[in-house]
Amino acid sequence: MPILVMKFGGTSVATLDRIRRAAKRVGREVANGYDVIVIVSAMSGKTNELVGWVSETSPLYDAREYDAVVSSGENVTAGLMALTLQEMDVPARSWQGWQVPLRTSSAHGSARIEEIPPANILRKFDEGMKVAVVAGFQGISPEGRITTLGRGGSDTTAVAFAAAFGAERCDIYTDVDGVYTTDPRICDKARKLDRIAFEEMLELASLGAKVLQTRSVELAMRYGVRLRVLSSFEDNDADAGTLVCAEEDIVESNVVAGVAYSRDEAKMTLISVADRPGIAAAIFGPLAEAGVNVDMIVQNISEDGRTDMTFSCPVDQVKRAEAAMEAAKESGAINYHDLVADTGVCKVSVVGIGMRSHAGVAAQMFQALKDENINIKVITTSEIKISVLIDRKYMELAVQALHDTFGLEKAA
Amino acid sequence: MPILVMKFGGTSVATLDRIRRAAKRVGREVANGYDVIVIVSAMSGKTNELVGWVSETSPLYDAREYDAVVSSGENVTAGLMALTLQEMDVPARSWQGWQVPLRTSSAHGSARIEEIPPANILRKFDEGMKVAVVAGFQGISPEGRITTLGRGGSDTTAVAFAAAFGAERCDIYTDVDGVYTTDPRICDKARKLDRIAFEEMLELASLGAKVLQTRSVELAMRYGVRLRVLSSFEDNDADAGTLVCAEEDIVESNVVAGVAYSRDEAKMTLISVADRPGIAAAIFGPLAEAGVNVDMIVQNISEDGRTDMTFSCPVDQVKRAEAAMEAAKESGAINYHDLVADTGVCKVSVVGIGMRSHAGVAAQMFQALKDENINIKVITTSEIKISVLIDRKYMELAVQALHDTFGLEKAA
Repeated sequence: MPILVMKFGGTSVATLDRIRRAAKRVGREVANGYDVIVIVSAMSGKTNELVGWVSETSPLYDAREYDAVVSSGENVTAGLMALTLQEMDVPARSWQGWQVPLRTSSAHGSARIEEIPPANILRKFDEGMKVAVVAGFQGISPEGRITTLGRGGSDTTAVAFAAAFGAERCDIYTDVDGVYTTDPRICDKARKLDRIAFEEMLELASLGAKVLQTRSVELAMRYGVRLRVLSSFEDNDADAGTLVCAEEDIVESNVVAGVAYSRDEAKMTLISVADRPGIAAAIFGPLAEAGVNVDMIVQNISEDGRTDMTFSCPVDQVKRAEAAMEAAKESGAINYHDLVADTGVCKVSVVGIGMRSHAGVAAQMFQALKDENINIKVITTSEIKISVLIDRKYMELAVQALHDTFGLEKAA
Repeated sequence: MPILVMKFGGTSVATLDRIRRAAKRVGREVANGYDVIVIVSAMSGKTNELVGWVSETSPLYDAREYDAVVSSGENVTAGLMALTLQEMDVPARSWQGWQVPLRTSSAHGSARIEEIPPANILRKFDEGMKVAVVAGFQGISPEGRITTLGRGGSDTTAVAFAAAFGAERCDIYTDVDGVYTTDPRICDKARKLDRIAFEEMLELASLGAKVLQTRSVELAMRYGVRLRVLSSFEDNDADAGTLVCAEEDIVESNVVAGVAYSRDEAKMTLISVADRPGIAAAIFGPLAEAGVNVDMIVQNISEDGRTDMTFSCPVDQVKRAEAAMEAAKESGAINYHDLVADTGVCKVSVVGIGMRSHAGVAAQMFQALKDENINIKVITTSEIKISVLIDRKYMELAVQALHDTFGLEKAA
């Protein structure tokens, strides 16, 4: 039997009634001839409640106990989903992470999946079981403790199962009906994409389009898992949702696939830093140690042996970045004249694998922003992405202008 | 280090604040020089919520999935208790049933404990851990599935750990401050017992005094575990609560230790049954198969080869008992003239190991009931117990009269 992986997020299993609706979808795929592995999240709200209890009990908690507590929500949903399927006469059973066993690293709270031996579940499929319901987000460490994979980790669980079992496809049921060219809440011309390449999805995911966890997309790309994102609240036909797939499976596409944004960015500039070998390490080492997620980095041209160094980070990490830089200055590791923080910026990016073969995308992007009188503060580029920092107040205008200029409202 | 087992029930861990108060008690015992094994129940209300979800999802549920769902409440409390102890600088970690592993039979929903290998936890004690927090009520079957021990199973978990680790004592913290001569809610002269023999506690527990699960007392008696019941809501001195212990540890005691009752009983009488060898098996076999918990059984003298057979059962099992008897009659397995159900009765019992060596307890009991004009409908006796069925409306009166006649308001 071909194997299908179906993943249901927290809003899709929030109540017994929604679990029943999800189970009906699973039942239809069983009727279509699949053996199904269902990955479930906790009922929405449950994980937050458990995290709240842990944080209130112990602000600097032992991550091993955090994992033991927080993983319990998925166990409940897995059992309830198995029971619901049984009520529909679909042979099913639940599996907790340690029962599979889904082996992970010991990095509690954000463990990496290391191995999913398929033997136990395959034996049950051979014995006539049609659905294995697996508690998402959790695994077992080499020490036999429960681990979790980080928030959104059930997506990663689903993709890892699809890879380990050679599944025909991995369907991610969520509360949106697919991946859009940009956020429909700020651009009413946003269009659902039928297909998107792994590389594009990866850039969009890490740029703040919260449809899929970044690691799940990385994993899907590495193992060639065909990933479909679709709504658990609508009737889906065979082409519903968005297929995230290899570049060669996309016949025609726009040069730019989508426009992403990240609202709460800050731009930090170290004024007049000595321009010497090792200065970048001396700056970004302490920032990394302080847990600052540095994103863009720009170094100005040097003058009289001194330069300005600009970087961006999430706006809620500015205080931490300032403290780290002052400590480094006091210790003599670096020297600078001033540290200027601009906390009123956002990041807007265009993403598309077509950029590799099309020149002029950057020029067209900058022209469109100029036409709206939007000043660009920092620019970075990768092979398939161009990002700019601009004033936050222009964010929606910029997204709409870029959506227009690259004609994203129409399919290629 | 001597080992102490401390068990906290659902009301004792109902909130983060109560978990902190329980943890302080544990910390004091660690300061007293003990290595402590803490057994926790789910926060009160949680297990009922989970059971409700399972029953709503699947009225005739798969007990293996029931166990997987319902056991999750204890995992949450175990992790939170370990974190709370760590915050107090007491080295602690949580253990789920399968991690110990607490091995049980495969009788899901009411599994029997088969083995608790102490090696894993003892190694951690050797490494400096002071407290092992164990999720109560759960274990793992030979097939690697999660099992539960039945409602109140955390008491049994606690006693089994005390036996397996040779603990000095097993302290059961609950919402009452000990075992009473009778229920203080219906008899204001009820007195807390300092000590009670295992055999007496066993009779009281199975008669409806809901302080301890019956199986936990059986286990404690078999392995000689000193069991103490005490309040988690009061400051307890060294002699607080009630010690459940071997008969020889009780120097002086009243002939009768306590008066128990069971409110919702029914008396069923099969009129004119053929009195032949095998008739009891033909009646009580089908009742057992139908899940009727038959308690007292009385057979009248035979006349003309026919007799009346009376038995008692919980009042909510009357319909089931009637159906089973009618089916047996239709199949020809038994024959009777009529089946009369009296659903307005209750059971009142006096219990005491002193009865073994004192004659006249039954006579004194019957006289006390006669003095109150209470009619006795059925009588059964064991070595240390006399039970009667009476009209439910006389229950409180009977309990008070028996408490008075045996002088239970005063210690021996």
